[in-house]
Amino acid sequence: MHKEQRQRTRALLEGKGINRALFANFFSVKWLTGYNPPVQVGPGLFDGGPPLVWYEDGHFTLVVADVYASAAGSFDQEPDGEVLTYLSYAVDQPIAAANHLRTTLRSLLSQSRKGAGKVGVEETDTTLLIVSTLQAALPADAETLPIDGWLEPLRMVKTAEELARLRENFALTDLGHAAARQAVAAGEREIDVWTAVHGAIQKRAGQRVPLGNDCVVGHRPDNNIGGWPLDHEIRSGDSLIVDLSTQLHGYWSDSCATYYPNEPTRKQVAMHNIVTEALELAISLIRPGVVARDIDHKVRQFIAGAGYPVYPHHTGHGVGVSGHEAPRIVPYDDQVLAEGMVILLEPGIYFAGVTAVRLEDAVLVTPGGAELLTGHDKSMG
Amino acid sequence: MHKEQRQRTRALLEGKGINRALFANFFSVKWLTGYNPPVQVGPGLFDGGPPLVWYEDGHFTLVVADVYASAAGSFDQEPDGEVLTYLSYAVDQPIAAANHLRTTLRSLLSQSRKGAGKVGVEETDTTLLIVSTLQAALPADAETLPIDGWLEPLRMVKTAEELARLRENFALTDLGHAAARQAVAAGEREIDVWTAVHGAIQKRAGQRVPLGNDCVVGHRPDNNIGGWPLDHEIRSGDSLIVDLSTQLHGYWSDSCATYYPNEPTRKQVAMHNIVTEALELAISLIRPGVVARDIDHKVRQFIAGAGYPVYPHHTGHGVGVSGHEAPRIVPYDDQVLAEGMVILLEPGIYFAGVTAVRLEDAVLVTPGGAELLTGHDKSMG
Repeated sequence: MHKEQRQRTRALLEGKGINRALFANFFSVKWLTGYNPPVQVGPGLFDGGPPLVWYEDGHFTLVVADVYASAAGSFDQEPDGEVLTYLSYAVDQPIAAANHLRTTLRSLLSQSRKGAGKVGVEETDTTLLIVSTLQAALPADAETLPIDGWLEPLRMVKTAEELARLRENFALTDLGHAAARQAVAAGEREIDVWTAVHGAIQKRAGQRVPLGNDCVVGHRPDNNIGGWPLDHEIRSGDSLIVDLSTQLHGYWSDSCATYYPNEPTRKQVAMHNIVTEALELAISLIRPGVVARDIDHKVRQFIAGAGYPVYPHHTGHGVGVSGHEAPRIVPYDDQVLAEGMVILLEPGIYFAGVTAVRLEDAVLVTPGGAELLTGHDKSMG
Repeated sequence: MHKEQRQRTRALLEGKGINRALFANFFSVKWLTGYNPPVQVGPGLFDGGPPLVWYEDGHFTLVVADVYASAAGSFDQEPDGEVLTYLSYAVDQPIAAANHLRTTLRSLLSQSRKGAGKVGVEETDTTLLIVSTLQAALPADAETLPIDGWLEPLRMVKTAEELARLRENFALTDLGHAAARQAVAAGEREIDVWTAVHGAIQKRAGQRVPLGNDCVVGHRPDNNIGGWPLDHEIRSGDSLIVDLSTQLHGYWSDSCATYYPNEPTRKQVAMHNIVTEALELAISLIRPGVVARDIDHKVRQFIAGAGYPVYPHHTGHGVGVSGHEAPRIVPYDDQVLAEGMVILLEPGIYFAGVTAVRLEDAVLVTPGGAELLTGHDKSMG
């Protein structure tokens, strides 16, 4: 699992003359190894620190709390992979996971080749404990250098295995949207639609599935762009933005549609049509060689040209082990799109307190342009 | 909000001669300030580091990413409270949250009284970035000392506000258990019961509610003690352990019952009765002055004395801003129980691959003994 991710990483590090590195960013670790702990109930209670990957000469050692060992899947059966666990919680002794992590790290590093030279470290995501352990274990002539953010460009281009997971995951959000369309009715609340969506998704998946992002009625006064579902009632003449991200096999999807409990008003029809065209325009612009910010600019221009306020958020973003990653379709990103990237596109029009619409599709960048990955109905119904 | 928590903390720090401290443990920050970000979709994408509290001379400054500002509630209106946010994600500039956090921290620390003396630091939970920023901002004669774990003993004794939240939360898990009892039937799957429970809870709460812990059929071959719901079918003659934790207003509940799709077998009846008695025994032992491990010992002895294998997990644990905290009813904990503690008690009997039972109640330690906080039906039905 995640073999290609590690091959690309190894090539990157060797190209920079690095034969040892410590990865501590949650998404780096997930992408390198497939490590995928449950996330739905918040930060772990008994971890000694973040999950880590120690890289040395092409070999990747994943260091995680024992309670999450099963989340590492079969990574220890990979020829270049190994899983080291440390004691997190036991019934017969006090909790001291940070100490156990330190001991485990020391033992791992004591077997290291201990040469001079640079050691990459994802510094901003690495705890003091870990870095100080690393530094104490290194010889005096070894030098650490920050490697934060190095993997994100690699993560943009998806492997075949990743694409298969993303496709399966987008099918789940398609199913969620079908459930949402059925559940939307005047008098129901945001949370009612949400529980219908989440229930349908989890029953299909046969397991718990983390679910983001938004479920907001148009009459929310402060912010009808996004937010968690609450007990706001869907009113007659209302709009409901339902933006769904699910995580399956460690990979996230994303998708959005807008629903109406009754026949949409003339204003809503006009808005929905413009956003539909904006999304079509965005999709038509996708091809290898295009610069991200140029897509952003053209879609914003289209909305403005139609006489509507331009949405205050990104036009789109990548997706993978995280739900929001590079490339970003935003005014500042000069990333050139390439074959194999997966990109969300999500223009919208918002009138706070009144009505709003956002439509979102996912596309794969192919030599011939965009291939649609989402299949949900985005019509006015 | 959380005023008493801060008063107790201030008294602790002053008693140790500390007038400045940095808290970086997620649960410390939550308990001190009420900061309660959504957790259901995993680690934040755009945080520059963990949420932090900088304590100085009785004043608490919460430092969080701007995207989570609303999760701080009205903390900045507290006389001893303040909220500092830093830029995490914006559409018009690249993401550099760690740098923004560093700048914000530097600015905060530059206004500090800058005296000599000890500065407490929750070291194992603090990133290198934060500690190095702190150390650079301190005068040469200031000294940092680790304060990891200092708050957990304070967190054990609940305030009136905390108790009110816990009571409301236990009512939610009571409701979840009623939904579970109704949903259990031969031919249904673990995930079907789970979605029924989660849907009922979220509709009642009018919002998303994180939900732990276990939903496992007796015939699971490897582990029928605990685990996330999967598509295992509930068979005729089966047992189903449903262990529910919800988070409401930042506080967790916990509770467990065992359900049977048909008339329980003679063996199941005998097991269920013994565990019912074990739980009653545990509850009867609760009072101020009792030592945690003595309760653990007596309940284990009771199960063994009845001729059953003794459960491999704790007998119980505390609950609050986290779902599992001190005091712990385990063989090593010599914590003396005190009025105001909230304790879960959860004996069980397990025969892997066949059948299992666990029952769990929450109690408040009062001068007169245990007051039951859970109200769910734990009968065989």
